[in-house]
Amino acid sequence: MIRIAEAGAALPASAERYTAIREATLALAAPLSPEDCAIQSMPDASPVKWHLAHTTWFFETFILEGRAGYRSFDPTFRVLFNSYYEAVGDKHPRHERGLISRPDLADVRAYRRHVDEAMLRLLESAAPDAELVELGLHHEQQHQELILTDVKDLLSRNPARPAYHPRWPLTPIRAAAPRWIAFEGGLREIGHAGEGFSFDNEIPRHRVWLEPFQLASHPVTHGDFIKFIDDGGYRRPELWLSAGWEAVRLRSWSAPHYWHLRDGQWHTFTLHGEVPVDPHTPVCHVSFYEAEAYARWANARLPTEAEWEVAASTSPLEGNFVESGALHPLAMREDPAPGTLAQAFGDVWEWTRSSYEPYPRFKPAAGAVGEYNGKFMCNQYVLRGGSCATPAGHVRASYRNFFPPDARWQFSGLRLARDA
Amino acid sequence: MIRIAEAGAALPASAERYTAIREATLALAAPLSPEDCAIQSMPDASPVKWHLAHTTWFFETFILEGRAGYRSFDPTFRVLFNSYYEAVGDKHPRHERGLISRPDLADVRAYRRHVDEAMLRLLESAAPDAELVELGLHHEQQHQELILTDVKDLLSRNPARPAYHPRWPLTPIRAAAPRWIAFEGGLREIGHAGEGFSFDNEIPRHRVWLEPFQLASHPVTHGDFIKFIDDGGYRRPELWLSAGWEAVRLRSWSAPHYWHLRDGQWHTFTLHGEVPVDPHTPVCHVSFYEAEAYARWANARLPTEAEWEVAASTSPLEGNFVESGALHPLAMREDPAPGTLAQAFGDVWEWTRSSYEPYPRFKPAAGAVGEYNGKFMCNQYVLRGGSCATPAGHVRASYRNFFPPDARWQFSGLRLARDA
Amino acid sequence: MIRIAEAGAALPASAERYTAIREATLALAAPLSPEDCAIQSMPDASPVKWHLAHTTWFFETFILEGRAGYRSFDPTFRVLFNSYYEAVGDKHPRHERGLISRPDLADVRAYRRHVDEAMLRLLESAAPDAELVELGLHHEQQHQELILTDVKDLLSRNPARPAYHPRWPLTPIRAAAPRWIAFEGGLREIGHAGEGFSFDNEIPRHRVWLEPFQLASHPVTHGDFIKFIDDGGYRRPELWLSAGWEAVRLRSWSAPHYWHLRDGQWHTFTLHGEVPVDPHTPVCHVSFYEAEAYARWANARLPTEAEWEVAASTSPLEGNFVESGALHPLAMREDPAPGTLAQAFGDVWEWTRSSYEPYPRFKPAAGAVGEYNGKFMCNQYVLRGGSCATPAGHVRASYRNFFPPDARWQFSGLRLARDA
Amino acid sequence: MIRIAEAGAALPASAERYTAIREATLALAAPLSPEDCAIQSMPDASPVKWHLAHTTWFFETFILEGRAGYRSFDPTFRVLFNSYYEAVGDKHPRHERGLISRPDLADVRAYRRHVDEAMLRLLESAAPDAELVELGLHHEQQHQELILTDVKDLLSRNPARPAYHPRWPLTPIRAAAPRWIAFEGGLREIGHAGEGFSFDNEIPRHRVWLEPFQLASHPVTHGDFIKFIDDGGYRRPELWLSAGWEAVRLRSWSAPHYWHLRDGQWHTFTLHGEVPVDPHTPVCHVSFYEAEAYARWANARLPTEAEWEVAASTSPLEGNFVESGALHPLAMREDPAPGTLAQAFGDVWEWTRSSYEPYPRFKPAAGAVGEYNGKFMCNQYVLRGGSCATPAGHVRASYRNFFPPDARWQFSGLRLARDA
Repeated sequence: MIRIAEAGAALPASAERYTAIREATLALAAPLSPEDCAIQSMPDASPVKWHLAHTTWFFETFILEGRAGYRSFDPTFRVLFNSYYEAVGDKHPRHERGLISRPDLADVRAYRRHVDEAMLRLLESAAPDAELVELGLHHEQQHQELILTDVKDLLSRNPARPAYHPRWPLTPIRAAAPRWIAFEGGLREIGHAGEGFSFDNEIPRHRVWLEPFQLASHPVTHGDFIKFIDDGGYRRPELWLSAGWEAVRLRSWSAPHYWHLRDGQWHTFTLHGEVPVDPHTPVCHVSFYEAEAYARWANARLPTEAEWEVAASTSPLEGNFVESGALHPLAMREDPAPGTLAQAFGDVWEWTRSSYEPYPRFKPAAGAVGEYNGKFMCNQYVLRGGSCATPAGHVRASYRNFFPPDARWQFSGLRLARDA
Repeated sequence: MIRIAEAGAALPASAERYTAIREATLALAAPLSPEDCAIQSMPDASPVKWHLAHTTWFFETFILEGRAGYRSFDPTFRVLFNSYYEAVGDKHPRHERGLISRPDLADVRAYRRHVDEAMLRLLESAAPDAELVELGLHHEQQHQELILTDVKDLLSRNPARPAYHPRWPLTPIRAAAPRWIAFEGGLREIGHAGEGFSFDNEIPRHRVWLEPFQLASHPVTHGDFIKFIDDGGYRRPELWLSAGWEAVRLRSWSAPHYWHLRDGQWHTFTLHGEVPVDPHTPVCHVSFYEAEAYARWANARLPTEAEWEVAASTSPLEGNFVESGALHPLAMREDPAPGTLAQAFGDVWEWTRSSYEPYPRFKPAAGAVGEYNGKFMCNQYVLRGGSCATPAGHVRASYRNFFPPDARWQFSGLRLARDA
Repeated sequence: MIRIAEAGAALPASAERYTAIREATLALAAPLSPEDCAIQSMPDASPVKWHLAHTTWFFETFILEGRAGYRSFDPTFRVLFNSYYEAVGDKHPRHERGLISRPDLADVRAYRRHVDEAMLRLLESAAPDAELVELGLHHEQQHQELILTDVKDLLSRNPARPAYHPRWPLTPIRAAAPRWIAFEGGLREIGHAGEGFSFDNEIPRHRVWLEPFQLASHPVTHGDFIKFIDDGGYRRPELWLSAGWEAVRLRSWSAPHYWHLRDGQWHTFTLHGEVPVDPHTPVCHVSFYEAEAYARWANARLPTEAEWEVAASTSPLEGNFVESGALHPLAMREDPAPGTLAQAFGDVWEWTRSSYEPYPRFKPAAGAVGEYNGKFMCNQYVLRGGSCATPAGHVRASYRNFFPPDARWQFSGLRLARDA
Repeated sequence: MIRIAEAGAALPASAERYTAIREATLALAAPLSPEDCAIQSMPDASPVKWHLAHTTWFFETFILEGRAGYRSFDPTFRVLFNSYYEAVGDKHPRHERGLISRPDLADVRAYRRHVDEAMLRLLESAAPDAELVELGLHHEQQHQELILTDVKDLLSRNPARPAYHPRWPLTPIRAAAPRWIAFEGGLREIGHAGEGFSFDNEIPRHRVWLEPFQLASHPVTHGDFIKFIDDGGYRRPELWLSAGWEAVRLRSWSAPHYWHLRDGQWHTFTLHGEVPVDPHTPVCHVSFYEAEAYARWANARLPTEAEWEVAASTSPLEGNFVESGALHPLAMREDPAPGTLAQAFGDVWEWTRSSYEPYPRFKPAAGAVGEYNGKFMCNQYVLRGGSCATPAGHVRASYRNFFPPDARWQFSGLRLARDA
């Protein structure tokens, strides 16, 4: 599971770090009304209020509960804000999270303050379980991203298409032309190494055999994807996996999620409202199926997660993360160093061809937090690299995100690969 | 459609009456938070915020729109808050009313003020369409009842079972024993008569032939219904209509809606929270199917709507309406006059055996308001008499309420009938 | 329930009559293969093999079972071929009737022979329950009609659109122009009278008050209905009941069931295969919703069942029944007597505006056969007059057929009414 | 794709081989009635008649069509019996295969004869496309297995639980105790090698890195699985993948498919009717989810497909295949050679932990047959080794079968693995 520093090393889970991350969550909710925070737009998404409470529940349940002197804010929250931890006990049903008008937003904020005070006392005085605190903070960051993607889905269903945030001046610029970058094959290692934090699904680091391969220097852009659409991409079954083609037909997909054609011009809903699609930015809100079909159309394929990780391991951990305020993928201004991927981190999560499976000799973490990752290793596909809604510092080359192959409401895109 | 007073008679649609009814609606929402008002708990129910806006939309669309000097508050509301008027144009889908976080509650209150100001100017100075104003006010009263029944359903889904209103001291008292009251048969008349307001579905008044019949003096009580349950009522198919028995099996009904068995005692969720079932009060939250099965079990039957109307026509228009603040059916303290039904009005809507059909020579009102009633005359059953959530003065002996036979979230009960 | 002749009168349930009706059932199955008889095309329809077995089960269960000397053919059939009689015990689920490959068709024929032999012995020697035998024979005739309508639905789903029967030369002829026929209002009687057989839902005969009304001399034709379609009938919500309009949208109805537009000409699937729609014949395979909308479009309405029965009571019990072999409605050659309805019987069942309700003082038959009719008196609408698939002699003026308002696979049409 | 012999080598696709395999298919249908062959019991399964026709369609469409002198048996079959080949054109919907009563079984047999005659002429005289003929024969063998598994599902839904075949005397014997067999790690090769036939999904042969591992010498038995059930296996969420636990709850799984508890003894439906579960035979009819949960309960895991293939590559290609007539897994009589897996082939397909993915540098076959395998590489899991319903000679160590993780109607079981 979680790897912490050697004894004596500076613990990352300081009170300052705790406070900064917890405040960042509240900042994301600041532009939203109580109603915006209460509604669940689909079973996959959760109300913002639920995210605010559940991340708090995580600290309360796994760290504070049972400690001397800690008094529960409200015992019914143990069930109400449990997401999926069977070992913790009952859970409120996921698809009914939007039926809970009470506690209201003010109550949930009070709950956060109550837990934060107890956590800060603990962090400043006692010896907390540093691994669990760190896990709680990374968990909080994951939900920061979900706050944005979930409220985006909610706002998109309002006929008025309201903005989460006043429009940011997204300046269209010309994207660099992608090149193929070659990588050697052979026996390589992937998985988290070193002393920093990782989730349990990133370890153990292990050997894999790779044939020589090439990756595109840049992600596929919106402009590229429009060419796929114009070439009949959504009408040609030979380009699709069978399950993908079934999704296209049953759900009448004809473009990425959030797109509308107005007067012959593709528009997309963003957190700044509806805007014309900018062809120079990485495409997002495509499912694994669409990514896989696009790659076939382009005479290429998706990379495996091992290929992606090997290739990205030399790229700097920089990019368009949530702190930029863009909240949307951006075109690249400058080229990366030779042999290095552009936009490997930030902008869009990149679908890989890899089913989300346990690494060889994977062991889930002990206790209830062992349910964090391992039990989802089925019928999901791995995405890499983080997005414009991911907090900076949350992601790394070995980070494995995962979603079902039909999911489209995340900032998910792709990068092409081919055999060398 | 609507019948108004002769020229020269005092018009009911005065500014005072308008203001009183509009303020009563807001008063019902007063105990609720923005979250309480925003959420839709099921497709049949609507958010309170939607009720507040839709009743306002009714006045704006049918009375103010197009008048000189009237400026629309927000043109998108024409679609957003249209319930089912095809002639008005597009509608926001009913089951998505809970996905609209914006306009928020404050905006909807501002919308109400905007329309109220224009309406009051009109009522005080010009010659409004008095029939339409009156229709709008009765429409508003119908939605007052729905605000209560819909928010009751929402609150009931919260595991904490919160109260809409602090508990009112419902004093259990002994109910009077029901008697059979005999009514003669023959050629009778039903339907609205006279000059007061009625909906278009209550007219024309017309002749019907009735065989002699008897009605119970009182509605069936919660205590009566517990006997039905204890006698295996929900496990004996021979007591049920075929469609009713299917509902029992598919939905696992074993008691009226909102009931839970705790430690051997039936409890029910009320607008004051969960309370033990009081056996002396009229049973409510039963479907037509349950009412019909109960009557068979009791060797009786449901009355037809003609029988009910003939029998109730001599009862005074008094009862436990919303203004009592009980928000729940109450036991009868004093007996009615001989030959008169007790609790005919208020407490619970009484299911009849009559399918909701057009009266002979029925003509829907002209224009879009013609969609108000007529197009629902299929697969619904008639209820009579009003409930503890109905505003006093809204109901009358000829009033025809209607719901599908499986609906249970209204304050719906029954009164027994039998052949003389 | 069933009304039989006075003591001493000739009983209709003779061995000859029994044999004739039972053989007629087999004759309907004669053109069909074992596969045709085994498959269930939709939950509403049953396999022909099931009809053959269930009608036999009816005699075995209600007449033979428990009699001295009768040995059950196969005890498992008691459950397998019970349609909906809860009092008889368990039932095989209706929507799984098509999963029963065994007993096969030959076995079911043997079952019929076994029961027929016992029934004939009983009819010739002992004193059977003549009422129940007669009920069984009318029951058998109802299923004869369902064999045809159900297998028609099955064959229609085969892309090759195979014929049940080699094509019969349906000669198009010019239909007579319909006229309005006026009927006086007043206190009238409806319901079965006299000594012949009737189902329990046709009695007691009782008084009803009718306002003066008019009925069309002829049913609405296919040609009439094409005008409704051409006038946008399926695209204009103002013509429809709310539930009807929902059916139009959700099921994408744009014409009656079984219709296809080929090269600008409407075709329909018949038991003789697909043919061009003949404009001069009564329209069939329309739902109550379509019938009701058509009537509104035509500035008319559907008759009530009381109006229909009063009007039809003077028409001779003649028409295009199943024995004609047409198996499709036919155009009228000769006009009826003045004041008499044309094609009141046979050709198409005529939807009425009446919900299927119990008549005043209705009492279901005693015992399990009491489930025959009464428990379906909810959410269904009454049709009158029989169709081209009904056996001659089965129907009468007081006969009440009933189906849900969205049912289209019966030979169901309509006749217009209006207020005088 | 398909690998054929070098030029000059004896082609396997002789007329004798063709005839033998085609006749084996008919032999499987011999015990079945026309009704047994016509019905579709669930969308996943197809009617036997459809299998008989579709395998014939494969030869007609991919080999005979367009050849000089070949006349189509019935042009409508091109659509009717196309399974999933988009490149061939329209398809009859999969879930409606059971609605096709015509062509009947006799017609389909005639279709088989028609195509067989043309194929034999071609095989004896001309130069057919040997690769495609061979593919057609392996395709036919796959459907032989499906005929058995699909009709088993159909018969199981009949309350009489009829047998496909008179009971075969399955003699219970004592199974050998499983041992762990160790395999070294390192750089290994998997995928089809050599000149024999393989499907395109088995190539190219390629290198993989394996850590040292152990496999159980025998599959998990029914007796083992009963211990899992008795230990609360189906009630303990911590043993399950999240999606697996959801399946358990939603479908109320409490034992493998086809199991019923009668008088405290587990019984299972087999092709010989219902029998008590024999604890010494390999467990079958478990989903991937159940296999994966069982392995966790047993402190082990499922093998990857690479581990399985490496381990099985030294086992002889022998086992309990369909030709034994057992049609059910059997207990092992004799132990395998040291270091060799017992029952690797036949008895039950063994779930692996591997998602069904393209091998590195996988290329689908050219043309429409390229849809055979590749487009299903998503949301499915790999099974290895063949079953008691698989024809001998059809399977090999590199053979990759695949089904969704919730599929239970195949003869699917498991073998445990663990890290060395």
